[in-house]
Amino acid sequence: MGKKVCIVGSGNWGSAISKIIGQNCASDDAFHDKVHMYVYEEMIEGQKLTEIINTQHENVKYLPGHKLPANVVAVPDLVQAAADADMFIFVVPHQFIRRLCSTLKGKIKPDAIGISLIKGMDHTEAGLQLISDVIREILQMDVSVLMGANIASEVANGDFCETTIGSRNLQNGQLFKRLLQAPSFRICVVEDANTVEICGALKNIVACGAGFVSALGYGDNTRAAVIRLGLMEMVKFAKAFFPNSPPQMATFLESCGVADLVTTCYGGRNKRVSEAYAKSDKTIEELEAEMLNGQKLQGPQTAEEVYKVLQTLKIQDSEYPLFVSVYNIFYNKHDVKSFIECLQNHPEHM
Amino acid sequence: MGKKVCIVGSGNWGSAISKIIGQNCASDDAFHDKVHMYVYEEMIEGQKLTEIINTQHENVKYLPGHKLPANVVAVPDLVQAAADADMFIFVVPHQFIRRLCSTLKGKIKPDAIGISLIKGMDHTEAGLQLISDVIREILQMDVSVLMGANIASEVANGDFCETTIGSRNLQNGQLFKRLLQAPSFRICVVEDANTVEICGALKNIVACGAGFVSALGYGDNTRAAVIRLGLMEMVKFAKAFFPNSPPQMATFLESCGVADLVTTCYGGRNKRVSEAYAKSDKTIEELEAEMLNGQKLQGPQTAEEVYKVLQTLKIQDSEYPLFVSVYNIFYNKHDVKSFIECLQNHPEHM
Repeated sequence: MGKKVCIVGSGNWGSAISKIIGQNCASDDAFHDKVHMYVYEEMIEGQKLTEIINTQHENVKYLPGHKLPANVVAVPDLVQAAADADMFIFVVPHQFIRRLCSTLKGKIKPDAIGISLIKGMDHTEAGLQLISDVIREILQMDVSVLMGANIASEVANGDFCETTIGSRNLQNGQLFKRLLQAPSFRICVVEDANTVEICGALKNIVACGAGFVSALGYGDNTRAAVIRLGLMEMVKFAKAFFPNSPPQMATFLESCGVADLVTTCYGGRNKRVSEAYAKSDKTIEELEAEMLNGQKLQGPQTAEEVYKVLQTLKIQDSEYPLFVSVYNIFYNKHDVKSFIECLQNHPEHM
Repeated sequence: MGKKVCIVGSGNWGSAISKIIGQNCASDDAFHDKVHMYVYEEMIEGQKLTEIINTQHENVKYLPGHKLPANVVAVPDLVQAAADADMFIFVVPHQFIRRLCSTLKGKIKPDAIGISLIKGMDHTEAGLQLISDVIREILQMDVSVLMGANIASEVANGDFCETTIGSRNLQNGQLFKRLLQAPSFRICVVEDANTVEICGALKNIVACGAGFVSALGYGDNTRAAVIRLGLMEMVKFAKAFFPNSPPQMATFLESCGVADLVTTCYGGRNKRVSEAYAKSDKTIEELEAEMLNGQKLQGPQTAEEVYKVLQTLKIQDSEYPLFVSVYNIFYNKHDVKSFIECLQNHPEHM
């Protein structure tokens, strides 16, 4: 009997990855043919979303136009979806993860393992926390992470792309690679899981900087410098934040690092909204309402949390001029032009 | 008495960098106030280019619209320009470097040092050779290199950007940093000079791949994967090509590495012309004539030279699927679609 898989989440990214998971589970004896996908029930034109998925095999709300494999079965009850699963794929918006894990606590197999596809970090009163640590704490399971330059729609289309799995337990990482790799979705597995996960949060601060220099009218040279200096601050921060498990330089050269950073700094929402912020008199909340349907932009929040961490660790602002400048522009109304001055005195060039 | 500086070359990049050099030499006692710039004499509307530069302080042909510092003096005779120089800046098209060095041989100060700003490599019958090695061999001087994400016009405008100096002799590297750094032109010096220089050549092969995936209609995910896999092949090739001075991973995270690669893969000429090549039935020579005024595109040439090196070293094609695929598409008429198949079997994902 192959391993049973449960996908916790059915949004755009969850539905896209379910295409690959369904195909692999249907063809590989290592996995049980039937895949459960926990779907938060909603009514779509009078019909339940789970029913639509289970009959039409399409998530008409979050990934319209793509057939999901027939062996991916939508289940509206989380505990029922998860009951006999050996492998969990967590792919929900990060604000829901604590509640979902609490619901699952004590109701899953004791040797189940998980992987988090959730971008960003948890912002609590205690400070920044990795999403995978939230899951580990509540469910006491081994948790890998999958991060990379992956836009859900491009993955769903089968466009060639890469991703990174970070696993403290490499055997589990390899099993998830077997479950998730496809001809056009290529995976590298690394042990340095913390770095894989933190890259996905910190990149959004850098993308705000990329938006600022676009707004100031600078070209490709300057953006390249922002990307690279941002990467250097990501490396330095990861070292300071994880003093007991020093990040490997090579991890930053994986898809989760430099590749994801580059795409985010060219086309991502943090770049776009920050550029608009720099060009207008609107507040970030007004722009979130206008440009993101009211969703929170991650870059400014993460910049604030990172700033707090620097304060707590008594690290000088001048050590992280890019991160601190993004924070000051959003929260202390510093002029966007000051961003360049901060870069001109970067410790990298001393 | 400060060091005397001679700029060998006065094209777009040479003229842009002369703005910084002139300013620094005028204000820093470490350098002689007067800077010689060797200018290949041409007539512009009946007037000598050197005369125009020395009276109007503008290189009207190669950097129109920018005032050059008055202490940058154009000299049409190379030997005269170089006679008493302590520091040389080599910034000419690479096909001229051998002849210029031969002209200088035996006619310069024995303890003079140089820095090469020349992108690309020398393609001889003996194979690929670093431009700095050509200069070293002929002139027997210590040669540093300067490479990075630097577009001449943006540097001339004073837009913020970064660059990398590679110096086998770090003391010389620091002296060149003092000569060349400006508030918006920020320099990191590394000892791993070979890597700094070879990055500038290999990036052009990767940029051809970025052009192919654009032509095939792929988006940011796929381009990010091409950039990253290309970077991995650059690292591997540098290790194979310089077995006696292993490249440092950190060098690839300098401006000469990832930053220059990214800008080249988004906006550079190799990307643009390769995209056009993939979309049309024209030969690369026809496109060079149409799009580059007949100048040779560097990516295909470098791919061919790299391919020869791999053959000589008896390295399997499958170890460098991206480099080899670019070679095959240009020289063996392989279908552009095969590029993606090559990436799907990349050793990075084994």
